[in-house]
Amino acid sequence: MGVGLIGGSLARGMREKGLAQEILGVDEDPRALARALELGVIDKAFNRPEDAAGAELIVIATPVGAAEGVARRVLPCMARGACLTDVGSVKASLVRALEEALPPGRYFIGGHPVAGKECSGVEASSAELFQGAWCILTPTPSTNPEALNKVQSLWEGLGAKVACLSPELHDRYMAEVSHLPHLVAYALMDGLRGKESLRFAAGGLRDFTRIASSDPIMWRDIFLANREEVLRSLSAFEEALSSLKLNVAAGDGAALEAAFARIRHLRAELLGERACE
Amino acid sequence: MGVGLIGGSLARGMREKGLAQEILGVDEDPRALARALELGVIDKAFNRPEDAAGAELIVIATPVGAAEGVARRVLPCMARGACLTDVGSVKASLVRALEEALPPGRYFIGGHPVAGKECSGVEASSAELFQGAWCILTPTPSTNPEALNKVQSLWEGLGAKVACLSPELHDRYMAEVSHLPHLVAYALMDGLRGKESLRFAAGGLRDFTRIASSDPIMWRDIFLANREEVLRSLSAFEEALSSLKLNVAAGDGAALEAAFARIRHLRAELLGERACE
Repeated sequence: MGVGLIGGSLARGMREKGLAQEILGVDEDPRALARALELGVIDKAFNRPEDAAGAELIVIATPVGAAEGVARRVLPCMARGACLTDVGSVKASLVRALEEALPPGRYFIGGHPVAGKECSGVEASSAELFQGAWCILTPTPSTNPEALNKVQSLWEGLGAKVACLSPELHDRYMAEVSHLPHLVAYALMDGLRGKESLRFAAGGLRDFTRIASSDPIMWRDIFLANREEVLRSLSAFEEALSSLKLNVAAGDGAALEAAFARIRHLRAELLGERACE
Repeated sequence: MGVGLIGGSLARGMREKGLAQEILGVDEDPRALARALELGVIDKAFNRPEDAAGAELIVIATPVGAAEGVARRVLPCMARGACLTDVGSVKASLVRALEEALPPGRYFIGGHPVAGKECSGVEASSAELFQGAWCILTPTPSTNPEALNKVQSLWEGLGAKVACLSPELHDRYMAEVSHLPHLVAYALMDGLRGKESLRFAAGGLRDFTRIASSDPIMWRDIFLANREEVLRSLSAFEEALSSLKLNVAAGDGAALEAAFARIRHLRAELLGERACE
């Protein structure tokens, strides 16, 4: 459901690894469906979620804001024993809502492959997108273990490393390492609006603001759905920035040098890269 | 003067393009000099700036904070007609100080190649570092045109695109597109100190904070020397962030989507890259 970058990559990967016999694509955009058929990404195309609800495994790969609505249309039509999962970047609200709505004998597993790129659409999709990436699944005490296994096997089959977190912890973690950096990159780029200086921007700014090219609707939905955790992580950032700002304003070279050395070490250590020195 | 990443790359490039007959290296660190000799980057090595002051063209490639001191030791020993230049990321204070200190018949041209990488040291240097990069020169009304030509030819010979700006405008532009992004990346990384979430960081955060791995002393000096412009550009960023934050807090999806679409377009347009759609 949703034949874009993620849905398309999932379909390509499943076909390449032999993880599905038949792949049905559902999208409200007929051009996306036509492209996906043409590229051989899907076998059959449908406009309405209900039409593909007979599948054994259903993956919702829409923007976050559309996922619950699509799920509520699919759930009543699902076959007994069938499993629904999703790929959204925010989990707590969706998982809570769907667990309440689940008919007996149908299963839902919240999922989030931590992968993507700034380009969107099925044209940008790739069977290799999830290779080596994290996929976080968010089971709860009421999750069916077999359904969890099935979804875990899918992602592992596509080369992803699977981790299980509670939906709430997932949302906090993603606010910190993904949603906040996006918000900051957007603000940085926005603050440079109309500046002559942009012609002299070097690679640092380009890398830094690459994520500001991401899909606007996807990111609108993420910030709406994960508002509290985003605001919480934003506070930590603002504190860190404010402390550096005070040191700059005071001309405190020793404090700046110590902070920069500490931060460099932190980045090298935690991102598993060697510092250059 | 200063055999690190930039000084070393300059020396390698000049040798490769036949732009110098003999290259003298000066550094207070004997290990850097030994490495540079060993790698064939320089022909002769000296500890004291005065010892190489007989050269026709002298380039100061130290961290920003050390440049003026080195220049003041070199200036009195320079030959008539000789030209001094530098590669520092902040220009107004240095250019002002050196123009006042210049003996008759000796010239100074402020310069700044907008290039670099997070790794430092002569080992990381490369003759190709400046290829296609901007090099900003900062002449003033009292600049000698022949000396300016000489330095411009040097950088063009190394493949750089040369632009001339006043020292003050240079400092404003660099605060916006380089110094501010560095400060923000440092703050972002610092705000994530000790967070479990870092293990799930995807490529976005890595790219985003790559520049937080830069040399701490170099960046300390830059923020001290360009304090006012950095604080000014930080204000523009804080305003942009604060506006996005209000929209997130208010759950204003329409405003967020419009802002993100505008910012994506801005980035695509100004950085000369095509948006994906």
